[in-house]
Amino acid sequence: MNGDRAQPDWSAPERAVRATARECLDSGEPAVLTTVVAVDGRAYRRPGAKMIVAPGGGATDSEPTDSAETERDPATGAGSVTAGCLADSVVELAGDVLADGSARVERFDLRSDETWGLGVGCDGVVDLLLEPLGAAHRPLVAPDEELVGGRTAAVVVESEDDRVAVGDRWTEGDGRSEGDGAAGAATALPPAVVATVPDDVDGARSVRAETGGGSVRLFVERLAPAPRLVAVGSNADVRPVVESARSAGFRVTVVGFRGGRATSERFPRADRVLATSPRDLREAVGFRPEDSVVLMTHNFVDDRVALGELVATPVDYVGVLGPSERFDRLRAALADDGIELDDRDRERIYAPAGLDLGGGSPAQVAHSVVAEALAVRNGRSGGHLRAIDGPIHSRDT
Amino acid sequence: MNGDRAQPDWSAPERAVRATARECLDSGEPAVLTTVVAVDGRAYRRPGAKMIVAPGGGATDSEPTDSAETERDPATGAGSVTAGCLADSVVELAGDVLADGSARVERFDLRSDETWGLGVGCDGVVDLLLEPLGAAHRPLVAPDEELVGGRTAAVVVESEDDRVAVGDRWTEGDGRSEGDGAAGAATALPPAVVATVPDDVDGARSVRAETGGGSVRLFVERLAPAPRLVAVGSNADVRPVVESARSAGFRVTVVGFRGGRATSERFPRADRVLATSPRDLREAVGFRPEDSVVLMTHNFVDDRVALGELVATPVDYVGVLGPSERFDRLRAALADDGIELDDRDRERIYAPAGLDLGGGSPAQVAHSVVAEALAVRNGRSGGHLRAIDGPIHSRDT
Repeated sequence: MNGDRAQPDWSAPERAVRATARECLDSGEPAVLTTVVAVDGRAYRRPGAKMIVAPGGGATDSEPTDSAETERDPATGAGSVTAGCLADSVVELAGDVLADGSARVERFDLRSDETWGLGVGCDGVVDLLLEPLGAAHRPLVAPDEELVGGRTAAVVVESEDDRVAVGDRWTEGDGRSEGDGAAGAATALPPAVVATVPDDVDGARSVRAETGGGSVRLFVERLAPAPRLVAVGSNADVRPVVESARSAGFRVTVVGFRGGRATSERFPRADRVLATSPRDLREAVGFRPEDSVVLMTHNFVDDRVALGELVATPVDYVGVLGPSERFDRLRAALADDGIELDDRDRERIYAPAGLDLGGGSPAQVAHSVVAEALAVRNGRSGGHLRAIDGPIHSRDT
Repeated sequence: MNGDRAQPDWSAPERAVRATARECLDSGEPAVLTTVVAVDGRAYRRPGAKMIVAPGGGATDSEPTDSAETERDPATGAGSVTAGCLADSVVELAGDVLADGSARVERFDLRSDETWGLGVGCDGVVDLLLEPLGAAHRPLVAPDEELVGGRTAAVVVESEDDRVAVGDRWTEGDGRSEGDGAAGAATALPPAVVATVPDDVDGARSVRAETGGGSVRLFVERLAPAPRLVAVGSNADVRPVVESARSAGFRVTVVGFRGGRATSERFPRADRVLATSPRDLREAVGFRPEDSVVLMTHNFVDDRVALGELVATPVDYVGVLGPSERFDRLRAALADDGIELDDRDRERIYAPAGLDLGGGSPAQVAHSVVAEALAVRNGRSGGHLRAIDGPIHSRDT
C-alpha cells in the first residue's frame, strides 16, 4: 500500500504488494503483476519477488507521482523486482502489457555495464514475468491470514504447446483436474501439466513439463504469509519492537496482560493487539512453529507463567528480554513449577534476546531483537556477510 | 518529539528527548529532566539515559494523554529511564519536583519483586536525578550539530557542602573558573569542583570531589550527537535504509548523484538530502570517523568513483551493497585508478554489507545493514547475546 506516500512504494514489503494488488482488483484499475521468475548469477531480488505497476496511476490511495521524475505519465505501484534501477523500464513494459492484454517474459542482462545504459554491474541475468492483473491472481495475492500454512502456485513461463500460454496459472485450491477448482477456470492449466507441479516446493523453482503438445516450463512458488512476531508485554519498550518488526516485514501481534495498556491506540502499527492473562496466552494467540515470540513483560511473575505456556507451544524462537541472571531465576522458578527446560527449549529460548549490536536505547534493543528473530527464522548465523562464503541468497536459490 | 502521537513517547531516541526539552524551554512549559545517574546490578537503561516529563501536558505538539490510562492528569514527555514500568512513579515524582523547585536524587530498587508492587525483577538498583528543566540545561539538550565532537557535562548528585546543591551543573563551554563561561552562572559549580571534572570521560561515570566544605559526588557524562549514517545512492532501496536507520537512532544523510532523484520528497525521513557528483562526495558531506556509510548507488561507475573518495576519508564503516564478486571488480577497478586498498581499508569496508539475517526483501536488507553499522560503531560482534559472557551493557559501565 502506498499509504500517505506521494510516489510508488517500490520498497514495500511483499504483504503490501499483495494488498495493493487486491486494491487494484477491487477497484478495477488496470495493473500489471511483475514477478522475478529466474535469476542467473547474482541479482538484488530473488525468484518470486513481486511488483505491482498501475501505469495509469490512481489505482491506490497515493497521490500521483511527480511526472518530472520519470518523464512519463504518473504511475503508481508497490514492490520491487530489482534494486530500483530498472523501475522505469518495468513501468514502460507494463504499459505495453496492458495495451497488448497478454503476459510475457522479459530478460534483463545486468552483467554488462552497457545494458540499458545503466551501468548497474549487478552480475546477474533476471527474467521477469509481466501479467495483466486479473481474477486468476486472487489466490496469489490473498491476505496473510488466508496464506497461513502455505499455498503452491504455478505459472507458465515458456510454452511450445499452442494450447498453453505464458501466464496460464494454477494455484493450490484450484483443484488438480478441470472443473475441480472453484476459481481461475479461464486460465486453468491442462490437468497433465498441473499433475507435474511438485508438492514439495519451499521457496521457488522452475520445472519443465511435457504436455503431449510440446515442452512447457513452469515457475512454481510456495506462497506464505508474512512472518509473525508476537510481542508479549505492553510497556513503552514494546512500541519500538513493533515499529522495527513491521519495518522488517513481520506481521506483529502485541499481547498485554492487565488489560488497559494493551490497546490499538498504544500500538497503532501492530496488526493485532490482545489483552489476556498469562495463563490464557496459548489459547488467545494460537502459536505456530514459524512464529517469533519476544517475552518482555518486565514483570517476573508474568514472565514466569508466560514462559511456562510458551515452552508448551511449537514456537521456534522465544526471545526473553533482560539479563542472563534474571533468566536463570526464571528457569529456577519454572523448575519449582514442575517445568524443566529440555535441550530443545535451551535451543529455541534466546536469553538475553537479541544480537550483540551495542547501543542500549529502546530503539536499538528493538533492532537487535528483531535482527535475531529474522536470523533464527531464516536459519542464518547473524555474523558479518563478508565473512561468509557463498552467495548471499543461497537459501533461496 | 511526540509528533503525531497521542501519548508520551517514552521510547523516543535521545535526540528526540533533547528536542522535546528544547521545545519545553522555548515555550516556557514546566518540565522535569530525569537522568539515570547510577546503576547497581542490571537495569534496562544505562547511566546517562534521559527522560523529559511535562506533568502538566501540552508542552509538546502532542495531544493530551488519555488520562484513563494513568488515572492522573495528562502528562506528556519523551524518553525513558526504565523499561517503562516506573513511568507512572516518575511522572508523580516530577510533579513533586516542579512544586518544590529543586533537584533531587531518588533510588529505585528493582531487585525485589515487592518493591513498588511491580514485581519487575530487573536485578538492579537505579538512581534517578530529577531536575526542573531550566536555562542551565540548554548546552545539555543542544541539537545534534552543536554536539559534534562531543561535550562533557557534570552535575552534583550528592553534596556535604552547604554551598553546593544537588543539581548544580557545569557543561564544557561554561569555562573552568567563575565568570569564565557564557552561560549557566546561576548554577555554576565552584572552580575547585569544576577542576575535578575529568577530561577523558567516554560515556558516563561518577567522580567524588573535595570542595573544602565537604565531599561532593558528581555524575559526569560525555554528550555526543546521534550517530550519523550516510546512504550514498537514491534508488528505491535507499528508503528502507533511511527508515531503519532513523528507527535505530541514527541521523541520516542521503547523497544522490544525477540530481533529480535525491530530493527530500523522495526521502522524507532523512535529516539531510544532498545531490552532488561522485567526485565531490567528500567535500559535499564532510565525513567524520564515527560516520557509518552505506554505498548503494547500484551503478558500477558511480560506486567506483565514490569508493575511491570514501577510502580517502577517516570513516570507520563503509558498507558496500552487492555480491562479493562485484566488490572484487570494484577493487580491481580502483587499482586501475591507482588506489590500492590497504589493511585498514579491508577492515573498514564491509562487502557485502550487512549481517547474515536471511530474508532478502529491501526492508530486510536494510535491517541487516543498519544492524551491522550499529555493531561496528559500538565495537560489538553481532553474535547472539546469549552466547556472550558478561553484562549486556558492559561497554557503557
